[in-house]
Amino acid sequence: MIVDCAAYEGGRRREGKLSMERAGEAAGEAGTFVWLGVVEPSEAEFKAIADEFGLHELAVEDAVRAHQRPKVEEYGETIHVVVKTARYVDPKEMIEVGEVSVFVAPDFVITVRHGNADLAPVRQRLESRPDLLAHGPGAVLYAIVDHMVDRYMEAAHGFDEDVREVELQVFGEGHNPTERIYKLEREVLEFQAATAPLGEALEDLCRSNYAVVPEPLHEYFRDVEDHLRRVTTRIENFRQLLDSALEANLTQVSMRQNEDMRKISAWVAIAAVPTMVAGIYGMNFEHMPELEWRYGYQLVLATVLAVCLYLYWRFKRSGWL
Amino acid sequence: MIVDCAAYEGGRRREGKLSMERAGEAAGEAGTFVWLGVVEPSEAEFKAIADEFGLHELAVEDAVRAHQRPKVEEYGETIHVVVKTARYVDPKEMIEVGEVSVFVAPDFVITVRHGNADLAPVRQRLESRPDLLAHGPGAVLYAIVDHMVDRYMEAAHGFDEDVREVELQVFGEGHNPTERIYKLEREVLEFQAATAPLGEALEDLCRSNYAVVPEPLHEYFRDVEDHLRRVTTRIENFRQLLDSALEANLTQVSMRQNEDMRKISAWVAIAAVPTMVAGIYGMNFEHMPELEWRYGYQLVLATVLAVCLYLYWRFKRSGWL
Amino acid sequence: MIVDCAAYEGGRRREGKLSMERAGEAAGEAGTFVWLGVVEPSEAEFKAIADEFGLHELAVEDAVRAHQRPKVEEYGETIHVVVKTARYVDPKEMIEVGEVSVFVAPDFVITVRHGNADLAPVRQRLESRPDLLAHGPGAVLYAIVDHMVDRYMEAAHGFDEDVREVELQVFGEGHNPTERIYKLEREVLEFQAATAPLGEALEDLCRSNYAVVPEPLHEYFRDVEDHLRRVTTRIENFRQLLDSALEANLTQVSMRQNEDMRKISAWVAIAAVPTMVAGIYGMNFEHMPELEWRYGYQLVLATVLAVCLYLYWRFKRSGWL
Amino acid sequence: MIVDCAAYEGGRRREGKLSMERAGEAAGEAGTFVWLGVVEPSEAEFKAIADEFGLHELAVEDAVRAHQRPKVEEYGETIHVVVKTARYVDPKEMIEVGEVSVFVAPDFVITVRHGNADLAPVRQRLESRPDLLAHGPGAVLYAIVDHMVDRYMEAAHGFDEDVREVELQVFGEGHNPTERIYKLEREVLEFQAATAPLGEALEDLCRSNYAVVPEPLHEYFRDVEDHLRRVTTRIENFRQLLDSALEANLTQVSMRQNEDMRKISAWVAIAAVPTMVAGIYGMNFEHMPELEWRYGYQLVLATVLAVCLYLYWRFKRSGWL
Amino acid sequence: MIVDCAAYEGGRRREGKLSMERAGEAAGEAGTFVWLGVVEPSEAEFKAIADEFGLHELAVEDAVRAHQRPKVEEYGETIHVVVKTARYVDPKEMIEVGEVSVFVAPDFVITVRHGNADLAPVRQRLESRPDLLAHGPGAVLYAIVDHMVDRYMEAAHGFDEDVREVELQVFGEGHNPTERIYKLEREVLEFQAATAPLGEALEDLCRSNYAVVPEPLHEYFRDVEDHLRRVTTRIENFRQLLDSALEANLTQVSMRQNEDMRKISAWVAIAAVPTMVAGIYGMNFEHMPELEWRYGYQLVLATVLAVCLYLYWRFKRSGWL
Repeated sequence: MIVDCAAYEGGRRREGKLSMERAGEAAGEAGTFVWLGVVEPSEAEFKAIADEFGLHELAVEDAVRAHQRPKVEEYGETIHVVVKTARYVDPKEMIEVGEVSVFVAPDFVITVRHGNADLAPVRQRLESRPDLLAHGPGAVLYAIVDHMVDRYMEAAHGFDEDVREVELQVFGEGHNPTERIYKLEREVLEFQAATAPLGEALEDLCRSNYAVVPEPLHEYFRDVEDHLRRVTTRIENFRQLLDSALEANLTQVSMRQNEDMRKISAWVAIAAVPTMVAGIYGMNFEHMPELEWRYGYQLVLATVLAVCLYLYWRFKRSGWL
Repeated sequence: MIVDCAAYEGGRRREGKLSMERAGEAAGEAGTFVWLGVVEPSEAEFKAIADEFGLHELAVEDAVRAHQRPKVEEYGETIHVVVKTARYVDPKEMIEVGEVSVFVAPDFVITVRHGNADLAPVRQRLESRPDLLAHGPGAVLYAIVDHMVDRYMEAAHGFDEDVREVELQVFGEGHNPTERIYKLEREVLEFQAATAPLGEALEDLCRSNYAVVPEPLHEYFRDVEDHLRRVTTRIENFRQLLDSALEANLTQVSMRQNEDMRKISAWVAIAAVPTMVAGIYGMNFEHMPELEWRYGYQLVLATVLAVCLYLYWRFKRSGWL
Repeated sequence: MIVDCAAYEGGRRREGKLSMERAGEAAGEAGTFVWLGVVEPSEAEFKAIADEFGLHELAVEDAVRAHQRPKVEEYGETIHVVVKTARYVDPKEMIEVGEVSVFVAPDFVITVRHGNADLAPVRQRLESRPDLLAHGPGAVLYAIVDHMVDRYMEAAHGFDEDVREVELQVFGEGHNPTERIYKLEREVLEFQAATAPLGEALEDLCRSNYAVVPEPLHEYFRDVEDHLRRVTTRIENFRQLLDSALEANLTQVSMRQNEDMRKISAWVAIAAVPTMVAGIYGMNFEHMPELEWRYGYQLVLATVLAVCLYLYWRFKRSGWL
Repeated sequence: MIVDCAAYEGGRRREGKLSMERAGEAAGEAGTFVWLGVVEPSEAEFKAIADEFGLHELAVEDAVRAHQRPKVEEYGETIHVVVKTARYVDPKEMIEVGEVSVFVAPDFVITVRHGNADLAPVRQRLESRPDLLAHGPGAVLYAIVDHMVDRYMEAAHGFDEDVREVELQVFGEGHNPTERIYKLEREVLEFQAATAPLGEALEDLCRSNYAVVPEPLHEYFRDVEDHLRRVTTRIENFRQLLDSALEANLTQVSMRQNEDMRKISAWVAIAAVPTMVAGIYGMNFEHMPELEWRYGYQLVLATVLAVCLYLYWRFKRSGWL
Repeated sequence: MIVDCAAYEGGRRREGKLSMERAGEAAGEAGTFVWLGVVEPSEAEFKAIADEFGLHELAVEDAVRAHQRPKVEEYGETIHVVVKTARYVDPKEMIEVGEVSVFVAPDFVITVRHGNADLAPVRQRLESRPDLLAHGPGAVLYAIVDHMVDRYMEAAHGFDEDVREVELQVFGEGHNPTERIYKLEREVLEFQAATAPLGEALEDLCRSNYAVVPEPLHEYFRDVEDHLRRVTTRIENFRQLLDSALEANLTQVSMRQNEDMRKISAWVAIAAVPTMVAGIYGMNFEHMPELEWRYGYQLVLATVLAVCLYLYWRFKRSGWL
């Protein structure tokens, strides 16, 4: 589905929406480029566009099928950039990954998105910056990548909060956060797979001399690369933290088990005293003087109680109870 | 065993099956190349082919013995590519690894397969794409590698499902998935050993200038390399997940042990009450007033029962039972 | 907020404080450079400075927003260096990370700090070294980076002490240092993220030929790089040590659990003796000769006591008690 | 001790054994090279050889002392290659590491071996391949390295079997394979230290242009390098597997502990029933109607037995017994 | 403190000890170089030397303050090499790290040592090798580094023995080697930090073309580098082994806990039999035929004993006792 199609000239959007047919013509005019936005196109639909703009067979296949790695590929003058989108869905503690394919040529840029990405705000923001837009289709690429990396930062922030919650559970009472830690690790791995390869692609974009990424844009891409590296460092740290949290959690479980075992044992010890004493005075010897004492029973009960209370106090003091 | 032998001219298969003798001649004709498919050849059998086509002694040894690493090797104009095939056998949760050796020269391509690979569909699909075939023997190599990497993707998908099943077992009840996790780790390692080195080989194929891989095919190999890297990232993630699953599993085992210990202890505590009380009233003191009460026995039984029920309720509430 | 602004000529500070307006002029004079120190500027405030000195839009954004990675970026003749500051707050066992952005051009240097960095001592020390200052703005950059790396060393020292304390707790009695170890790991990761990328930046500074870092300063930057690498090695070692401490701690917990279990069991065994014996003589058989012995009761009590003492001695000897 | 010394001319061994003195002469003749095999020479013994053939002081020291890392070193025209030999001694589950030093010059090759290497079969096999031998001393080097790497493969196979046995023990009954796993890890590390650096040396041999390794031999060394990389990948996988086996083993131990604890507890619970009931009817209340019933005793015994059997059945069903 | 100062000419030491003043002159003579040995100099003391020989300010600071990383730095014609010394103090199981700074110029070499290094033997050995000394100050550097790396080898040997002792403790009885393993890990990390960076420095020394390290010495430095790499591989392996030992130890602790639990439980089970039986015959039913049997008591005792012995035998057989 085509969601937006416009021609840009000298950094400004030409009035009105273009039809696909007139887009090709517009792209042909000097100093003008066309930005065509497509959402989850069918194979036939995208084939038509590809034919119109002369895209390479393999790139087309990638764009329609999605599930590519982030990358930059060069097909003659056109470059094909794949960027992943990421959104952290907090209630489910899951990372939702989408994909944007961008075809950048000297006179057009085609964006194909799959999943949760919304490029409308990117277009709006960019249209308010004619100075950037004047650099041509490369500026559109920059704006998209910049936007995506900002979204990664937000997703990382969402992770951060959940990792901190998990820590509280590990060192708090009454939780078993093992499954939660594991699930977060899974999501972190997916997040990492979506973002890490983009670093290479960005480096490529600012080091190589693609005709569609003019010199003044290099600093912009370098800036995005830098932001991305902050995100990837954080993601890597999440993995390390979750690994440690998993092990700390195991220690806490063992610790708690030991505490429970001590508590239980202390009560068993306290209960053993009356049982043992009662056993002794339950023996049937004919000559057991204490049995005949007037207050023998009361005395024994009192002694047992005293011993039990003493034990209770000792265990309490030594932290077993 | 020779399974298929045909000459291709201008992207189209020449009618009829070639005998080995006439294959040599056909390969000599300009604009024509021969594709010879062999399955698990004996040493003598392959020696004959090697002599006919002038293959290097070492390559021949490798092709007959199999068990090579994926690689590209150059012997003069001929390149020798080894690719592993992988199939995930779900019922056994095992990866089945085979091997295809491809000798690519300007006028012939020889494919030698060992194990579970089936190249017939590759040949069919390729014959329906004369535009690709027109690039010569390199196109055959591309078609084979592309097919294999697609099979890896399927195998990875099979793994993914088993990993998810294992996760359910780790965090579910009544399973000990330790052995299963371990076995999956073993298979993942084998899968990784079969696929990872291919990356280097593919990079070599699209960066170097082998005469048999003409320029227009580079983009195709780059595309396969990209797919491969997606597979290898997934495989690496499986390893990480299984590692974490092993540790999470240990924690769950400890957790369950603690729960069992608490449950057991709770019942022991409940049972201790009547035992202790019975012990006390089993003592043989002469003066124990309660013993003479008319409903002493019933009272004691009732009290004991009440205390037991109270304990049961407390333990239930605190989650020990 | 502008905190200090002065012109330097031939390695010496010109008398008096400069206003921003006159700073621009002063920077324009040959052989003179201006050092402008700013603290957490607002966007408007820094925009004015950036316009005056011609800083790049992206650098400005970075300087105002802070939270950058340590890096060197080149914008024409100006380079923008981001350095993190680190202070170890011992009572909270936390690393406090700040940031200094330095813009170095041939005729000015602008320092923007966020958080806990204090650059006044750097300026003082540098003003007492006219030989260094004579190298121009690059010398200011050196002095700042050198100062920061010395602070890292101090912070690492603070960590070192806490790691040693934690070790004592792991192998000592009565502590559960799990949470402390985990928290330290978190801080170490943050410290590492703040310092490690600086290495790359420093290498860049002494390898590349930035006009603002003249040849004689290269040795100074190499020296700082070397100090930094000592810090980063130490930090990496902290991570390794804390990882091992976490596992050693788990072992100690298991060990202690076993010791407790043995101790408990020993007491249970000792208590079982009188219970068992009392049970036997509590049976109601008509013909139990011992019951009629004159000193049967005393004999039994003495025997039980002897057995208990013997068991106590055995357990003591074998280390269970 | 000199074990064999012969001159080779045009790929064929010249009749008869050479004395050391005549070896020097023979080496001097055009188109001829000498192969001198030495076993664990004394310092004096090897000094004589080194003087005769002009070997470098440092290489001599290395050759006599053994315990070198695998490496290639160039001393003028001569190259000195150190290769480790490895044999897996199955009964002791130990890797036995020896060493072969090879000095390759245009007109001689000297092999010095320490430990378990036997080079006689290498010499025999090579003498039956005049086409290879015709490449001169480099062919001898190839034959030795090829032989050694084949031995590594066999050693790796030995490991593989033991690793599989250990797996059976981990997931089987009645073993504590912890020590075995640990010992295997130790051996794997030693194996790795002996083999991994050879990769670099081989790469050097086929990439660099040593006069003694002529072009046509490069493919042979590349082939060996490839075999070596298969071995090193397997060794690396052993390490990963043993790591996982160690952790799986710990889980199994915990699992078994829990099972034992449940089994024990179940029996304790069953035994608690008669004890409790007996305690109750052992009380001395004057009014306990059941005591006077004619078949009270039998009834109680029967009830207790029934309850015990019921519990046994329940525990059996839930897997605790 | 200056410990030795001598001039060397043509590989031989000139008679007599030089005063510092005359050292400067001697260094100026053609074909002569001065070796000045200093131990832990004060800042003033070393400043004088530095002025005399023209050392760089930063190098001086490093030499006096010590605690540098191993490195090579070039200041004009002079190179400054920092090497760590390492000694394994077996009784304390600690690595003792010192430092030697070597300033090598075409006509002098200054060695500054801190801590446990003793350079006297190096000087003696070198003076007996005029052929080496003839290469000038670079030979002194070689001799020192060679000596240090030999000391590393000895230290590694000391570690090796302790690691093997620890292994015996892990798999033996009655030890808790956790703390020892941890402490060894700490020392290994320190050892690694002291030795690993030297590799880079040595590589630099034999690859770069420092005027003070003439061509014929390259092979010597390459030899040292090789020895160093053997040490660093061993150190790395120690880390791996200690890591595994820590985990194996945890498993052994769990194993032993299970064994103790089984042993304890077996005894509890045996003791439960008489208690249960005694309880039954302690009941007060009026009609309990066994109680009236003449040898009822003896029969019961004998039965109980028999059952206990049977249980003991069963537990013994199944390995619980």
